[in-house]
Amino acid sequence: MSLVRLNIKGISYSQTQNGAYALILSEEEGERKLPIVIGAFEAQSIAIALEKEIKPPRPLTHDLFKNFADRFGIVVKQVIIHKLVDGVFYSSIICEHEGLEEIVDARTSDAIALALRFNAPIFTYKNILDKAGIYLKTSKKSRPTGKKDKISKEEETVLEELIGGEDKESVAPSKQDFSKFSLKELNKMLDEAVANEDYERAASIRDEISKRE
Amino acid sequence: MSLVRLNIKGISYSQTQNGAYALILSEEEGERKLPIVIGAFEAQSIAIALEKEIKPPRPLTHDLFKNFADRFGIVVKQVIIHKLVDGVFYSSIICEHEGLEEIVDARTSDAIALALRFNAPIFTYKNILDKAGIYLKTSKKSRPTGKKDKISKEEETVLEELIGGEDKESVAPSKQDFSKFSLKELNKMLDEAVANEDYERAASIRDEISKRE
Repeated sequence: MSLVRLNIKGISYSQTQNGAYALILSEEEGERKLPIVIGAFEAQSIAIALEKEIKPPRPLTHDLFKNFADRFGIVVKQVIIHKLVDGVFYSSIICEHEGLEEIVDARTSDAIALALRFNAPIFTYKNILDKAGIYLKTSKKSRPTGKKDKISKEEETVLEELIGGEDKESVAPSKQDFSKFSLKELNKMLDEAVANEDYERAASIRDEISKRE
Repeated sequence: MSLVRLNIKGISYSQTQNGAYALILSEEEGERKLPIVIGAFEAQSIAIALEKEIKPPRPLTHDLFKNFADRFGIVVKQVIIHKLVDGVFYSSIICEHEGLEEIVDARTSDAIALALRFNAPIFTYKNILDKAGIYLKTSKKSRPTGKKDKISKEEETVLEELIGGEDKESVAPSKQDFSKFSLKELNKMLDEAVANEDYERAASIRDEISKRE
């Protein structure tokens, strides 16, 4: 299956307080964009890595990962978004240490936060781009940063719908009333929220669970 | 300087929607507790590691770190909370690979999220515990978990004050009005919010910055 090189176009954060962000990747040789729904923490870690001038006083988790790998002479050579199931993208990070190559499964948000820190190229397979790629009118001034992203209103709308359609879990309002659910249901929903990287929702569910004690 | 072994007592999440959590560590041979203010994402990663029955469908960032280290035969042997400056705790993770030991600087929340995954002991120095240790009446039923934490109302109050006193940044309401600040101020505040792991606040500041564009 042929690999397609992807670049990071930017991060679109939803205006509707739902804690869902869309990371926009664009194919290097083409017009298609691959929008990936990620959590607030991962969005921030990616945005900070994109903003060269921002240097957090303390290392974020992905910075710690980079420092740790550097110390042992391990590099992340490339990232491949290799699978798309039920709107969830699965990635692999290809690492190397003294000629020994290891492939490690990762959430796409983590894989990309690391790719940025290791200056590693990001790839996906043509069939995934064929399946999930979309065309977005992009504004010339667009810059790849979460902080100063210039995704047009038009794009925002497309993305809002897309986030809603692709991954309902992660756009459910954090303040949803969970009181009607059973403990069993709540634990299941908690797992799902975590799987969807919707930590705001997960926190609300956890608070509801704690009330039952 | 003499090391003191610490155990994780639990995580207290503030009821006041400020995204600040207090991770409570307790000295193994004594009554003192060490409360550490951490962010929502880190609190969740620690809570999930404490809850043996919860297995996230996709690896969290700290799980990825563990899988990555395992693949290359690197272990985190221990974690040391070695410094306390302006209410911020600094930690080191002591790692080993084929007899080679490396010490890596980490935020305390990351260090503890990793210690749990590597079953590594957590230590601090006596002088830090003397400086920041507190006595909390603990309820017998208390269990070390973010989800089902049983920290008493009395403790909650102590912790709320303590979070407020120790680390004002991280208890500033996320919905604060940032419009009166300059871009320069906002960028500085953003750095501070990230340093304090208050991602809710950082997100609000970033949104304000983006409005100025």
